[in-house]
Amino acid sequence: MIVLNGGSSSGKSGIVRCLQEVLPEPWLAFGVDSLIEAMPGAGTGIEFAADGEVSVDDAFMTLQAAWVTGIAAMAHAGARVIIDDVFLGGARSQEGWREALAGLDVLWVGVRCEAAVAAGREIARGDRVRGMAEQQAELVHRGVVYDLEVDTTHTEALDCARTIARAMARPVLSGSR
Amino acid sequence: MIVLNGGSSSGKSGIVRCLQEVLPEPWLAFGVDSLIEAMPGAGTGIEFAADGEVSVDDAFMTLQAAWVTGIAAMAHAGARVIIDDVFLGGARSQEGWREALAGLDVLWVGVRCEAAVAAGREIARGDRVRGMAEQQAELVHRGVVYDLEVDTTHTEALDCARTIARAMARPVLSGSR
Amino acid sequence: MIVLNGGSSSGKSGIVRCLQEVLPEPWLAFGVDSLIEAMPGAGTGIEFAADGEVSVDDAFMTLQAAWVTGIAAMAHAGARVIIDDVFLGGARSQEGWREALAGLDVLWVGVRCEAAVAAGREIARGDRVRGMAEQQAELVHRGVVYDLEVDTTHTEALDCARTIARAMARPVLSGSR
Amino acid sequence: MIVLNGGSSSGKSGIVRCLQEVLPEPWLAFGVDSLIEAMPGAGTGIEFAADGEVSVDDAFMTLQAAWVTGIAAMAHAGARVIIDDVFLGGARSQEGWREALAGLDVLWVGVRCEAAVAAGREIARGDRVRGMAEQQAELVHRGVVYDLEVDTTHTEALDCARTIARAMARPVLSGSR
Repeated sequence: MIVLNGGSSSGKSGIVRCLQEVLPEPWLAFGVDSLIEAMPGAGTGIEFAADGEVSVDDAFMTLQAAWVTGIAAMAHAGARVIIDDVFLGGARSQEGWREALAGLDVLWVGVRCEAAVAAGREIARGDRVRGMAEQQAELVHRGVVYDLEVDTTHTEALDCARTIARAMARPVLSGSR
Repeated sequence: MIVLNGGSSSGKSGIVRCLQEVLPEPWLAFGVDSLIEAMPGAGTGIEFAADGEVSVDDAFMTLQAAWVTGIAAMAHAGARVIIDDVFLGGARSQEGWREALAGLDVLWVGVRCEAAVAAGREIARGDRVRGMAEQQAELVHRGVVYDLEVDTTHTEALDCARTIARAMARPVLSGSR
Repeated sequence: MIVLNGGSSSGKSGIVRCLQEVLPEPWLAFGVDSLIEAMPGAGTGIEFAADGEVSVDDAFMTLQAAWVTGIAAMAHAGARVIIDDVFLGGARSQEGWREALAGLDVLWVGVRCEAAVAAGREIARGDRVRGMAEQQAELVHRGVVYDLEVDTTHTEALDCARTIARAMARPVLSGSR
Repeated sequence: MIVLNGGSSSGKSGIVRCLQEVLPEPWLAFGVDSLIEAMPGAGTGIEFAADGEVSVDDAFMTLQAAWVTGIAAMAHAGARVIIDDVFLGGARSQEGWREALAGLDVLWVGVRCEAAVAAGREIARGDRVRGMAEQQAELVHRGVVYDLEVDTTHTEALDCARTIARAMARPVLSGSR
């Protein structure tokens, strides 16, 4: 499995599509966006404040936990899975995934983008609540440990994907991954 | 769990959104469309012929099987899940789901729509390969056993959803469901 | 030209796509949705209240007036054009169009749908502010004069489109159209 | 008026959204994508070959010409309009616009992006026929004369938009623009 974590408008989705293109085998891609889309009214227990702050309640966390369990089961069943998520809880969010993914080979990838650049791309894409990019740019990486980090500020999504694909191809010497 | 099966343009997605609205608890909704979207290039090993015939290969079946396993795991983990699928293999497709969902309480719902009406709605929606609606209208129900059937030919999605919700509320007397 | 007027979720877009299919010549289709999409932030001077009430200000009206002028110019330049609009101002809205379209052959079509049914379809489609369907179902037809009315409550979009297409094919005896 | 011309995946749409954000007045934005969407079956007389080559026939050209006339009429009626187009015919395409826009104050902007980078972004966005970005990167600029050129290869959409907005703010000394 590959888990990408980065703030809103940091370019995760583009990297995911490029990864699906450059990786030799078919990989399934899921993410927090597809989870929210699966919820009633396109989002249960998640609120987007006018300033871009995102808050989730227990109902959201419960559904998310079941979803994470299901994603892990897909991987255990043999599917190659790429996840893109926004670790609003930083290290705590990673811990949740880590527990669910126990026993699976996971590459943890941080997707960084300078806050000001991500905020500009948020305007350019035009389909996101303003302010999320800036609010999340640093927040989501707090205390998170990665095998690899990419930065879309000056690097194209396809190049980031190639870097990740090369890391996947590397022999794993220890059980650390 | 609720599993809806019906041909393309039979109105499954509308019923799902209405179900998420009328059911008192939050339900997650996944379907074959979200699976295809998760695949590389938005569809691996699935082909849409010019006449609307859909064929899938082993690569697709393998990813789908892992996905079904994951959906079942979400339900086992406590999530309420609505699935909308197109049983291209009829009874055989249902058997695959039945095995994966063993031990879960499932309501099987057939979503029917007269082929000519579904074909008209396929034109009206404008985002589907033409011919799928007509090809699948009967095909997907062959040999499939339902707890409940709804027909969108003359019944609105919301009314179909209410019928299904009432069936969910009924006390289960035997373990048959 | 064909101008369709009806409330939100009355089924105008579906009828438009079917009209483009059944009419023998290529027709361009524009509507209030495409106008809003053309505006900054996907909507300048238009507000959707929580109860579905839509209000527009002078800035919106000014842009809309220029847009209407442009649509009329496309028709004068020889394009066949289908418009779908929501006459929030009823007869007054029609008057605005009528002035802009002076000298053009226009078929005015009312698209009706029972408020309760439109409200149900608003839930089923899942991408509209709730309440608009019900608020607009009667409102938009007040004082508006049509050549033809269709009702999607019990009639499919394709059948409505065929009815409209037949009306287009009819010889025009007077200059009234 | 502002007319942006650039190849597929050169970043025109993002610049347009940023322009609508940074320009002090409300601007309407239309483009070849919105024209194609207005056509029957989402594209009449336009063909996308497997290698990304785009060809259009007379039916398309006729509808496009009427559309251009209408856009010019919107501008004459007082609307500020941003166009993003793909000049498949290079200088010839510009000539068509120039005739239609006679008498209007137009800023011609070339949007460049290195072919390889645009091709990578085409993969990342995932919703375009592959090959268009590369085929069009140089082609669309042949013989076209600009007031201003921006290059998204290493410059963000928002920065390109700011450059264009500054050019709009400059006093026009001659009638050349």
